[in-house]
Amino acid sequence: MGESVDLKQEANPEYYMSQALQEANRALEHGEVPIGCVVVHKEQGMVARAHNWRETWKSPIAHAEMVAIEEASRRLGGWRLFECDIYVTLEPCPMCAGAIMLSRFSHLYFGARDPKGGAVVSKTELLAPDLWNHHPDITGGVLEYECGKILKDFFRSLRQGKASFDQRS
Amino acid sequence: MGESVDLKQEANPEYYMSQALQEANRALEHGEVPIGCVVVHKEQGMVARAHNWRETWKSPIAHAEMVAIEEASRRLGGWRLFECDIYVTLEPCPMCAGAIMLSRFSHLYFGARDPKGGAVVSKTELLAPDLWNHHPDITGGVLEYECGKILKDFFRSLRQGKASFDQRS
Repeated sequence: MGESVDLKQEANPEYYMSQALQEANRALEHGEVPIGCVVVHKEQGMVARAHNWRETWKSPIAHAEMVAIEEASRRLGGWRLFECDIYVTLEPCPMCAGAIMLSRFSHLYFGARDPKGGAVVSKTELLAPDLWNHHPDITGGVLEYECGKILKDFFRSLRQGKASFDQRS
Repeated sequence: MGESVDLKQEANPEYYMSQALQEANRALEHGEVPIGCVVVHKEQGMVARAHNWRETWKSPIAHAEMVAIEEASRRLGGWRLFECDIYVTLEPCPMCAGAIMLSRFSHLYFGARDPKGGAVVSKTELLAPDLWNHHPDITGGVLEYECGKILKDFFRSLRQGKASFDQRS
């Protein structure tokens, strides 16, 4: 679990996505697929930051978003995150998109698209406004090149035999 | 977290759903929305059982399925649950349906439909065979009356002021 940092910044998607990218880089240190996430409260600033821990924790649900949502809920003392935005380097999968909806996030920012596993714009539009009783605003493509590059480099290394475990999903 | 019970039974959806219903009843003791879940390994029998803990843990992701999946992964020592079936008293929400897909469950059995929040057959078909690279077999309506009744009774009590917190989603 990445430490939480209470850092007040003006709303600046590129800044917060760069923080999520820092988390993705930390995932590499643990041999994890490099995906990072931060949660930003409108007044308190950054209240959670995390990366993917699936292999280390041997848990199918330890995606960056889930770990960050748990941390933010614990820190804010409740499960409704109305006042928060979430930044993630990769388009969320169906589980994480669902968790973002359930947590009542105000705004989802993501970096790269996930053509095979993305549940926001790529494979399905799980957060479409007419589907559930809450849906966040959505902005994709924030630092898209950088967020995509770290994943492409990781999977290229995997194919070259520099790492030894499966893709994320 | 409900304790795990290693109970070998012949494949019997009604038996395992009755165990999930027992978990739903335990949720009531904690003032939680009564939804229960069990995970059954094809050889080892029941390897996890859990109910919804969202209010107590103040976590938006502490649905019965998520808690049971975490427990099963921990017990089996890995995140791929190919050899397992999952039984849940209510049609899974998008987060839990996504987690069931990611965990590679063999078969999903659910009890009652969830017309407002169900992501398997009701609001969307998130586990449709052509969408992701894995999908479980699906059987709905197992002990449907009993699984629906415990929820209806709970929400009726809520409306009559006998409890004080929100609906599940």
